Amino acid sequence: MPAARMSRAVIIAVGSELLTPSRIDTNSLFVTQRLNELGIRVRYKAVVGDHRDDLADALKLALSRADLVVTSGGLGPTDDDITRETVAAVFGLPLDEDEGVVASIRARFSARGLPMPAINRRQALVPRGAAALANAKGTAPGLWIERSGAACVALPGPPRELRAMLEVVARERIAPLSSGHGIFRRVIRVTGRTESHVDEAAHPVYSRWRSGPVPIETSILASLGQIELHLAARGATEDAAVGALDQATSELAGVLGRDLVSSDGSQLEAVVGGMLRERAARVAVAESCTGGLVASRLTDVAGSSAYVQAGWVVYSNEAKAALLGVDAASIAAHGAVSEPVARAMATGARERGGVEYGIAVTGIAGPGGGSADKPVGTVYVALAGPEGLQRVRRLSLPGEREQVKFQASQAALDLLRRALLR
Amino acid sequence: MPAARMSRAVIIAVGSELLTPSRIDTNSLFVTQRLNELGIRVRYKAVVGDHRDDLADALKLALSRADLVVTSGGLGPTDDDITRETVAAVFGLPLDEDEGVVASIRARFSARGLPMPAINRRQALVPRGAAALANAKGTAPGLWIERSGAACVALPGPPRELRAMLEVVARERIAPLSSGHGIFRRVIRVTGRTESHVDEAAHPVYSRWRSGPVPIETSILASLGQIELHLAARGATEDAAVGALDQATSELAGVLGRDLVSSDGSQLEAVVGGMLRERAARVAVAESCTGGLVASRLTDVAGSSAYVQAGWVVYSNEAKAALLGVDAASIAAHGAVSEPVARAMATGARERGGVEYGIAVTGIAGPGGGSADKPVGTVYVALAGPEGLQRVRRLSLPGEREQVKFQASQAALDLLRRALLR
Repeated sequence: MPAARMSRAVIIAVGSELLTPSRIDTNSLFVTQRLNELGIRVRYKAVVGDHRDDLADALKLALSRADLVVTSGGLGPTDDDITRETVAAVFGLPLDEDEGVVASIRARFSARGLPMPAINRRQALVPRGAAALANAKGTAPGLWIERSGAACVALPGPPRELRAMLEVVARERIAPLSSGHGIFRRVIRVTGRTESHVDEAAHPVYSRWRSGPVPIETSILASLGQIELHLAARGATEDAAVGALDQATSELAGVLGRDLVSSDGSQLEAVVGGMLRERAARVAVAESCTGGLVASRLTDVAGSSAYVQAGWVVYSNEAKAALLGVDAASIAAHGAVSEPVARAMATGARERGGVEYGIAVTGIAGPGGGSADKPVGTVYVALAGPEGLQRVRRLSLPGEREQVKFQASQAALDLLRRALLR
Repeated sequence: MPAARMSRAVIIAVGSELLTPSRIDTNSLFVTQRLNELGIRVRYKAVVGDHRDDLADALKLALSRADLVVTSGGLGPTDDDITRETVAAVFGLPLDEDEGVVASIRARFSARGLPMPAINRRQALVPRGAAALANAKGTAPGLWIERSGAACVALPGPPRELRAMLEVVARERIAPLSSGHGIFRRVIRVTGRTESHVDEAAHPVYSRWRSGPVPIETSILASLGQIELHLAARGATEDAAVGALDQATSELAGVLGRDLVSSDGSQLEAVVGGMLRERAARVAVAESCTGGLVASRLTDVAGSSAYVQAGWVVYSNEAKAALLGVDAASIAAHGAVSEPVARAMATGARERGGVEYGIAVTGIAGPGGGSADKPVGTVYVALAGPEGLQRVRRLSLPGEREQVKFQASQAALDLLRRALLR
């Protein structure tokens, strides 16, 4: 039996493809979150190829440094799949064929009208004394081994299979051995402030929480077009941690005011969608440089057909005039990337869509098209709303084409969010 | 001096934030690619937090298993930044302050009109006998240490800084020590076939190349809406590897025919864009369930304003009728998700856009809106082209809302690609 209070884990991803330039281990993020919730921190992570010696080295070091070792991958039926044999060897256990596992693999094949290939029999090998973990989403069973102060769980590599199996093993086997002082996280999203301004405003709040009865650690991440505050609370119970997070979040909301987008991790497009739905309002979108990205983000949200009425992608000047009624003379006088054209696009979208809110984006995403006066990254976002409401912002956005597009879409959605806050 | 033929590396990412559920090490992908090009394989990877003992353990193990160890991160000026001291301790070297480095950090600050904070002096500490690597994009210098059969290079964590520094150190210090049998890669994209059909067609080609004079390893990855063939050639020279890849790629193109999207890693939207540009043709897009994603992908490509004329996002039935002239009676008779409506949308986009090609998508992205007859994932893509050309496909797409949207956008773009192949 491991020590009754499991607190440190090592995660090992197995697979030679994870050592190439085109694949990365993302399973460990999900595993980390689940372990953190049980009060278990990840001490380090490793990625090894399909080589017995390397995996054995990694397992031995991990077992000497942590009380829980989680592996992912290498449980398939082929010769490349070495996790099962290597774990057994490191623990010094012989492998026995488990008839129950053979039967369940055979059943999985026969449900699809297929005989079980002989090769899959390897997946039924279980180190003596270990438990085979049922795989609800695939053929490869997992493994659970407990011995003298340490436990090892071997999970399959495909994310769907890993997630389903981890849920069960975390609840049934890991939770009873963990301290129960789980780490719970929350992500707060903020727009309209720089990283240092968010820090300045939030610091008095989170410095107090850092040393509270339920300690909360905070980190700030600047991502494209928004700032994220990550809170991590460690509580004796989930209720205690969540209660502290609720309280800290509400204090942060107080100091961040209208710049707070969400305090439950929701994306801007979901927040805007929720507000439109609440107000029974609809939106239409006119896009030049974002090329459909604003509409696409809005429609990433389930149920968005209730409030996304229409969208226009109007790259060319003719399209701006023909589809949205933008005055060709205004384009000629001010240029397609200008405040009057942005306004006219938003108004055109609102009127032609027959909706409460029209939003528009026109700008220079690059790499070509910039000038001294309007360099690449110059973007206007505009909004037209009820009762003659109009808003326009000029932005100078850094980065490459896709980054400019994304930040411009953020600014347009945020303009709408702020108008809906009124 | 390390052995003259460096062949195996270990990559260690340093930073406690990389052990949380919200951050992942991606620097190692870039490092892997650069090392592979020099003929150096990555034996394993590790991620450790900002803890001296853990990093020291990882460094010692790595130095016993590889002839090159690359670290990223932990070179900043604060107490959390432990890489410099830990590398020195593991190699048993004292740290000396390097006056040249102090001067360059001071110059960097004074260029921005700022005095150098005292804390940054730590960044000028260099293990005796090691080389400080200039950081063109930031203040933290890197380190290069060679000793008895192994070399260690410490790179800064921010990707821009790491990439710039790696380019220089790879060329000037690693390349002369490597075997020169670099691994060069190529990605081939395929649509319209399953993974196993691609394998069936490609197997005779790549099984021959596997044992050729310039061996090429191939792996197949099924990703959303396409299959990727990854080729990795190991050649005595870059020319030899690239020549073999060219030859193998051309043989694969022969067996894959019209299903080959690109053999230089280009995305579908870039391939379609290139074909439109070559033929001086333009496109207009009508989107229901993809909500602007097709247009957004087309406009992710630089220069796409030359051929993307217009786009409509028509979620509602009224918008389909009003903006694209879809017959309301047809919508009532067949439903908005139907072959006649998809055809009418494509034709409407082509005519109202005044362009050669109209493409359209209508479907049920989910999670709501499905029926027994038309379950979630039912999507029609349609194309209208010159000389009465019309194409429609019905698809049943698996996955969540965003996955359905992406696969539907793939299918629409691929319909256009195949029409342009004629």
